[in-house]
Amino acid sequence: MNFSFNPIMPLTWTVSRADEPSVSYPAAVPGAVQLDLASALGWPDYRYADNYRMFAPLEDVDFVCRSEFMVPEKEASETLWFVSKGIDYECRICLNGHVLATHEGAVSQVEVCLEEYLLPDALNVLEVVVLKAPKKDCGTVDRVQASECCKAPVSYEWDWHPRLIPSGMWDDSGLQTRGRAWLSHARVGYTLSNDFSRASIALDTLVEGDKTDTLLRFILSDHSGKQVMELVGDRLEGVLDNPHLWWTWDQGTPYLYNYRVKLVDRTGEVLDSVSGRVGFRRVRLVMNEGAWDRPEGSPKSRSDAPAQIELNGRRIFARGTNWVAPEIFVGLAGKARYSELLALAREANFNLLRCWGGCMVSKDCFFEECDERGIMVWQEFPLACNKYPDTPEYLAVLEQEARAIVDRVSPHPCLAILCGGNELFNSWSGMDDQSLPLRLLNKVCYEMVPHIPFIATSPLNGMCHGNYLFRHEGREVYQWMDEASSTAYTEFGVPGISPREVLEGIIPAEELFPVGPTAAWTAHHAFGAWDGNLETWLGPATIEYYFGKSSSLDELIAKSSLLQGEGYKAIYEEARRQKPYCSMALNWDFNEPWPTAANNSIVCYPAVPKPSFKMVSAACRPVCSSAKFMKFLWEGGEVLEFSMWLLNDSYGVNGMRYNMSAMLVPPDGTEKELLSWATSSLEDNENQQGPTVRVKLPDWPGANRFTVKLLVSGHPEMDSSYTLAYRSVSKGPKVFYALNK
Amino acid sequence: MNFSFNPIMPLTWTVSRADEPSVSYPAAVPGAVQLDLASALGWPDYRYADNYRMFAPLEDVDFVCRSEFMVPEKEASETLWFVSKGIDYECRICLNGHVLATHEGAVSQVEVCLEEYLLPDALNVLEVVVLKAPKKDCGTVDRVQASECCKAPVSYEWDWHPRLIPSGMWDDSGLQTRGRAWLSHARVGYTLSNDFSRASIALDTLVEGDKTDTLLRFILSDHSGKQVMELVGDRLEGVLDNPHLWWTWDQGTPYLYNYRVKLVDRTGEVLDSVSGRVGFRRVRLVMNEGAWDRPEGSPKSRSDAPAQIELNGRRIFARGTNWVAPEIFVGLAGKARYSELLALAREANFNLLRCWGGCMVSKDCFFEECDERGIMVWQEFPLACNKYPDTPEYLAVLEQEARAIVDRVSPHPCLAILCGGNELFNSWSGMDDQSLPLRLLNKVCYEMVPHIPFIATSPLNGMCHGNYLFRHEGREVYQWMDEASSTAYTEFGVPGISPREVLEGIIPAEELFPVGPTAAWTAHHAFGAWDGNLETWLGPATIEYYFGKSSSLDELIAKSSLLQGEGYKAIYEEARRQKPYCSMALNWDFNEPWPTAANNSIVCYPAVPKPSFKMVSAACRPVCSSAKFMKFLWEGGEVLEFSMWLLNDSYGVNGMRYNMSAMLVPPDGTEKELLSWATSSLEDNENQQGPTVRVKLPDWPGANRFTVKLLVSGHPEMDSSYTLAYRSVSKGPKVFYALNK
Repeated sequence: MNFSFNPIMPLTWTVSRADEPSVSYPAAVPGAVQLDLASALGWPDYRYADNYRMFAPLEDVDFVCRSEFMVPEKEASETLWFVSKGIDYECRICLNGHVLATHEGAVSQVEVCLEEYLLPDALNVLEVVVLKAPKKDCGTVDRVQASECCKAPVSYEWDWHPRLIPSGMWDDSGLQTRGRAWLSHARVGYTLSNDFSRASIALDTLVEGDKTDTLLRFILSDHSGKQVMELVGDRLEGVLDNPHLWWTWDQGTPYLYNYRVKLVDRTGEVLDSVSGRVGFRRVRLVMNEGAWDRPEGSPKSRSDAPAQIELNGRRIFARGTNWVAPEIFVGLAGKARYSELLALAREANFNLLRCWGGCMVSKDCFFEECDERGIMVWQEFPLACNKYPDTPEYLAVLEQEARAIVDRVSPHPCLAILCGGNELFNSWSGMDDQSLPLRLLNKVCYEMVPHIPFIATSPLNGMCHGNYLFRHEGREVYQWMDEASSTAYTEFGVPGISPREVLEGIIPAEELFPVGPTAAWTAHHAFGAWDGNLETWLGPATIEYYFGKSSSLDELIAKSSLLQGEGYKAIYEEARRQKPYCSMALNWDFNEPWPTAANNSIVCYPAVPKPSFKMVSAACRPVCSSAKFMKFLWEGGEVLEFSMWLLNDSYGVNGMRYNMSAMLVPPDGTEKELLSWATSSLEDNENQQGPTVRVKLPDWPGANRFTVKLLVSGHPEMDSSYTLAYRSVSKGPKVFYALNK
Repeated sequence: MNFSFNPIMPLTWTVSRADEPSVSYPAAVPGAVQLDLASALGWPDYRYADNYRMFAPLEDVDFVCRSEFMVPEKEASETLWFVSKGIDYECRICLNGHVLATHEGAVSQVEVCLEEYLLPDALNVLEVVVLKAPKKDCGTVDRVQASECCKAPVSYEWDWHPRLIPSGMWDDSGLQTRGRAWLSHARVGYTLSNDFSRASIALDTLVEGDKTDTLLRFILSDHSGKQVMELVGDRLEGVLDNPHLWWTWDQGTPYLYNYRVKLVDRTGEVLDSVSGRVGFRRVRLVMNEGAWDRPEGSPKSRSDAPAQIELNGRRIFARGTNWVAPEIFVGLAGKARYSELLALAREANFNLLRCWGGCMVSKDCFFEECDERGIMVWQEFPLACNKYPDTPEYLAVLEQEARAIVDRVSPHPCLAILCGGNELFNSWSGMDDQSLPLRLLNKVCYEMVPHIPFIATSPLNGMCHGNYLFRHEGREVYQWMDEASSTAYTEFGVPGISPREVLEGIIPAEELFPVGPTAAWTAHHAFGAWDGNLETWLGPATIEYYFGKSSSLDELIAKSSLLQGEGYKAIYEEARRQKPYCSMALNWDFNEPWPTAANNSIVCYPAVPKPSFKMVSAACRPVCSSAKFMKFLWEGGEVLEFSMWLLNDSYGVNGMRYNMSAMLVPPDGTEKELLSWATSSLEDNENQQGPTVRVKLPDWPGANRFTVKLLVSGHPEMDSSYTLAYRSVSKGPKVFYALNK
């Protein structure tokens, strides 16, 4: 929402440690007080090696942000306010030495009227005292310290995020003038008729101040600027016939209307004005096809929770990812950063982003861009892997923050799911269906946005998280995905090393190769990041198992990237093959706010795609060919087996037929057709399974990989390619033949 | 809650069909309009044969209940009201021809001020127009018709309940005078300290009328009448040290305090006064022991929902049952009926009643008696086996009814669980986690009683319902219970025939034996009641399989009762053996409002225990011996095998040791000791598994059953006995020996 009439006017700030009030540094707002200090003191880049450790002593410091200003020109009837769209995490607002407000919570907007202590003709001193990081007294230095507050727990350390706790004004902050009355809330509420032919619009507004003799005017315009509705009065309701619907990019156009709400007085003078965009869509979570038939047998428990997104009446397979904050110091993230990352998300063919609860919620521009790009958002509340308490103190802050998050997210048509948080119903969190914070969140969402799906946590029953390795407990991704049968794979990961350019920016040159668990590699999560396992996240033993020792960093990068890419393709494509019972595949994770040396992400900090990115993108094309393998490593003389599929999430290729050829590409690059398959006529949103190819592999001495391609005649955009690991062992005859069944 | 100062004064009523206004009949209030009509017209007993079908045409009739009264003596400052604690289901209230109110919902209290149209010195005519039964236009004549209202769906027909839809004033109704101010709400809210040594009391009251210069006085007295707290003021809060706690009968004393709240004016005159009882307890649903370890492996879904009741910090195994309304016409049920049934529930050693959502909620006296007897209540909202809609109309009535149910139930310490309704997350209902009615119920319960456990439905994940037969899909109760592993068996049934006295009251004498699917037997659910299966609920083929043809009704009754009793013992005892992972065993069902010929109930209408009742009671003793068998039917020469257990749900036998003997009782009645076991020292709430007995059974020509007994030396109250089916087939040597492992 844009308050075009009452912009927030930025101020110039300085910052001091509260224990060293006489020393002050320039401060960037939005930003973070720790960064201001580090920058002023010339600290080295916190992203390099393990420099981030320097920030640890700042966790327990209070900071004073200070701004001096003269009262801006304003009408006599206007009042001056300090407004911040986000102060992380606890603060006190003072003007000219008077405490005007205290606040807890990073997302709920801070609005303080300054009038009482304002000096009209002198320099005013505004102070925002940002308190030290909240910590539960739990005897450990980890995320449990964040389990009694609504601060993003990820900054207390995760297996892909260093311990580095930011604070301060992280979103737009400054002065705002307000007239005698203003719009403190304006939302375009609507209900779509069952056939989507009518949108019944009801404006939900709140006017504050002196409302006497005021009136509301609402204007709705289509994409071309043409006015399609005007409403005037106190209670604004109307019907829009045949609204253009908002669709994800792969299902249609993410159509957005523009609106403006004006608060006018009797003379027609505009007292306040709010503009924004609205997209008309109906989103539901419905039972996955086949889910009512489970559990089988008796005695019988309940059926699983619904996990199938239905958009405008259409069941949509969610190809997506887990999104995390793009910066450790989220104040640094602006429209440009969100934009370059979201362009990549679109390029990856994703239509859903799970905005993970361990991180801070995104800024408005993130959701605006998701609206524009037609990418759905699953937004979580700030609970992750902790047991958040039933205490009235916590619940009060949580309710306030939850309402602020819903307020921030819910005007956006991209919003598809609200979720309590991450993995809360698992032993490592220890929350359950009785936990009051989750019952509260259900209540808040029911009250505010009853028609937006709400789930208490992920995974719910039927969904699953994991695995996070190419090989886990002796099973490869191919095997465990074949054995799994979930309604939604809402987290899974395959690690890959970062590109050389990222590594060179974070690892000292002399440690670059051979790799090892030095301070820099370890701080950047290449070794011992998960469960203390030295394989995570780089996986040197796994890489060596398939491809032998590497003689250079570039060779290691190539091998690691191949494993990550093929692993991700195997999971995404198998999840899609399990449609319609399966309805979602979201990898862990998309991006990262910290330049990891190795991680499950497919985009490195700040916005560098890994080589696996293109392979994930290929696996997520709405319509494409796909081969199902049961393993990665093959030997000479062995019968290679895979089945041919056509994956189709589209509603636009109904009735089409394709010819697909399976090709074997030996190490020498020659291609041989193994089998040709003419598909049946395609139906909307339905895959097609083709024949199974079986071919005895020749012996290729010295080779360690080979390729299988699927070529779709006349449709190169649907071709697929798979690289598999190979060992030459056979000394027998080099038979070469194909079978199909 | 008793409004001692403002009693509801009963009126004398008549009733007419709205389409025959000139004909009126005497009406009983509380009662049901259909019964009034049937009684006046001399209809035969609806409980006999299939007479209930006569009531079908009344479903679509509006009734007018009419009462004429003179204004009772009252002060000038007092107002006269019509109050009903329950009118089933839609009604219109008229006074002297003026419509004063319309109301939908059977449980929410109706309160109508009569003053505006009251004739002070003439006869007033009060009319309660009870509308015809609500029916969804769904094309079927069944419970689906009840899926858009909050009326008890059971009356639309169930597999143990005829189609017979009552309506009318089913709870206390009449005139009430109110002073210038009155207490419309008064609840003793409290929080217990973590060590249960302090109860922080906060009175929650609502005063209506003219509150000027009024004051509240609160007096709390212990069981002996000794005053332990007095509070005076507007906001009444205090601390009670070392409160006696309310316990279930098997864990301690269900201690109740008495309180009185007075609304007084400045002169000390009492304007209103409310008295009641309060029991101090903390009840939680916590994770079952071992439940965090599931699911095993990865990828991983969520852990199951908590189903372990914790009362005052103590984990309690819930031995209980499913309670249904004791009358089809619930208005007929009074304190006496509830009392005789609850005496039986206590005799059955139950500590939890699941008040099933398909039926009407109970009257106050039910909960009062559960409080006194120390029996916990799981109360469901009126949703069962239907897909209730997300429409604003339904949600509005549901919220009103839900608040009324919580208001009715929550003052009672017996309340342990609130639940959305029955089997809603299964295919035959079709609701899921996104269903707004269930999200609304979470919200209502969160707001009103956040510290009372709330579950959306039963079963949740981890819990199960079924089976309902001694043999189901080829498996006996022994086998499927051994294979099952649930946190809570919240429904399971084994059918049994009713005693001869019940059968003679409902089946024509000439049809009594041999039994067959006549109209009377079928109407009373002996044949074709469940899934159209001719075996349900009598099970003639199962009875014959084990014991051959019966030559008399009494023989059939004995055989059926044995199967029901042994079947229930097998389930209850195995569920208890599965403790601590398992925490509940509740059979379907305890009682019935309809005299069934055969059913899963253990108490026939009106309050006649079946022979199996005593066997269930034995299986539910807090401390008892138990034998685990894997099957029911044994043959001569076969090795009988069973393991010996000591079941202990008590916290009072800590450190005790027992000697238990396993005895074989052949058909001739001689007893032989098979094995003796000296238990280890018992621990609180822990079972002990003893040795497995193996003995080759002799051939007993002509016998069809034998008995195994467990005798606990010096503790005959812990002895157990099991009758098993037998077939003589062996012609070999009659070896007789015992083994243990």
